[in-house]
This record gives sequence, C-alpha cells and structure tokens, in this order.
Amino acid sequence: MLTRIDHIGIACHDLDATVEFYRATYGFEVFHSEINEEQGVREAMLRINGTDDGGSSYLQLLEPIREDSAVGKWLKKNGEGVHHIAFGTADVDGDSEAIRGKGVRVLYDEPRRGSMDSRITFLHPKDCHGVLTELVTSAVPGPPGGAQGH
Amino acid sequence: MLTRIDHIGIACHDLDATVEFYRATYGFEVFHSEINEEQGVREAMLRINGTDDGGSSYLQLLEPIREDSAVGKWLKKNGEGVHHIAFGTADVDGDSEAIRGKGVRVLYDEPRRGSMDSRITFLHPKDCHGVLTELVTSAVPGPPGGAQGH
Repeated sequence: MLTRIDHIGIACHDLDATVEFYRATYGFEVFHSEINEEQGVREAMLRINGTDDGGSSYLQLLEPIREDSAVGKWLKKNGEGVHHIAFGTADVDGDSEAIRGKGVRVLYDEPRRGSMDSRITFLHPKDCHGVLTELVTSAVPGPPGGAQGH
Repeated sequence: MLTRIDHIGIACHDLDATVEFYRATYGFEVFHSEINEEQGVREAMLRINGTDDGGSSYLQLLEPIREDSAVGKWLKKNGEGVHHIAFGTADVDGDSEAIRGKGVRVLYDEPRRGSMDSRITFLHPKDCHGVLTELVTSAVPGPPGGAQGH
C-alpha cells in the first residue's frame, strides 16, 4: 500500500546552485547527498516534513553525471523541472507486482537501489497519464530525522 | 515558514479517467472536488498522507475548463504531467512577501482562493529552476481527514 508522497524528483543542471536556491529562498537544508552511479546522477535530498506512516517527504534534486543517463537525456529535452514523483510503501516488491498485474508497465524486473539505500522501481509515464512515477521502500523506516542523514 | 509538501498538481485531459486511474492503480480516493472558475479548472484532491505540521499531502488532479486557462495552455504545450508543486505554510502572505524580497517573482499581488478555500500564490518557474511553485495556507489547519472533504 502506498502510504505517503516520499519525494518529488527535480532535474537540474547544477546541483550546488539548485541546493543554494532552495536554502536561500525557503530555508530547506540538505538531509543527505550521494552519487548514484547506476542512475547516473548526483543528488541531494531536502527533507521537508514527516509523514503519518513514520516516514518523510523530500525534494530530491538530481544533476546528471552523464549526458546519456535517463535524467541527462530528460534534461536535454525538457530543461530543468519536475522529473518524477515517488510514493512510499513498506512493500515495493508486492506493490509493483500488483500494479504490473493491472497492466501498468514497471520499468525494472526487480527493484534497484535508490537514495539512502532504499529500494525503488519506476512505472512508465505513458501508463500513468504522463507522470513518471517511482515506488520506494526506505531502508530505515521509523521516525525521520535520525542518523540516516550524512 | 514552509512546513510541508502540500500537494503535487497534475494536469490531465480527462479528470474522471485520471481519478479512476489513481483509484484503480493505487487505491487513492477523492477527498474533495470542485470547480475553480478563476483558475479555469475542474479538480480533484486525493489525500495521500498526513504531515507532522498537522496538515496533509495531496495529489491535485487538474482538468482545464477553458483552453485559454493557464492549465489549458500548459497542457496543450506539454501534454499530461506534473504542472506544479505546492508547499504548505501557516502564513502565505508573510512568506510570499519575504520570497518576493529575495528577488523571486510572485505571480499574484495578493494571495487568491485555492482548493478547499485555501489561500494561494505562485512563484515564477523561471526563478525556481523550472518548477512552477505554489505556496498555500489551508483554510482548516489541524488534523486531516476531518469534515472539510465532500
């Protein structure tokens, strides 16, 4: 069951400048940053609020590290903006299989590694009214703001 | 202070079909629906989760009722997808003035009426790394899931 808006993924050309925009304009701080080689992105997670399923909602700022990454190609075509949205679930495997069974294309055969050691998959935007949609199960459920940020 | 992801605004051609997609695929239900004549949209709010500031996070599905509305023009240019993101605050007036003072263009002189009698304004996407960004103060703060839905 999808129990929260986990994050909004935003593609940008310059991660440091975009992080600084969100900090200076709204006061949002970086909770976690990493490079995901498989996804081809450098990213920063800005934690916005806690959610009533014990998780959190984030903005995920994404800068491609390769032009031929999915985000790199998207950015070249669309320019900066919202790249995807993500719903949190305790069971990404079960939920993605159930959704696949309804005829929605799931992009990975098995969930892959996402931010902060989460497990993620994506649904095809053409099957989701134009919205690239991610499903994510956090590595560390429970109350937010703990030791997972670094 | 912006204390939550209030909603993700998604533009669609057919509100009923899109509502049905979100219900059948994920189990999300309509919490509230209305026509906003000023914004030129018919919309449905799907409540996804509660937030730790006492509010909620929603998907806001938007179908233009006029081709020359902002959402109608956007949809014609971009097709279905994420139209804007919205942050919740207890003080949309103060926050939007503070943000205007930092050089970000605020699209309304004064906040206007949004979903469920909220007060809203928008920030220019070109000043926000490509993201049309809404600020919203709910009419009814406090615990979600109460009598405001209909």
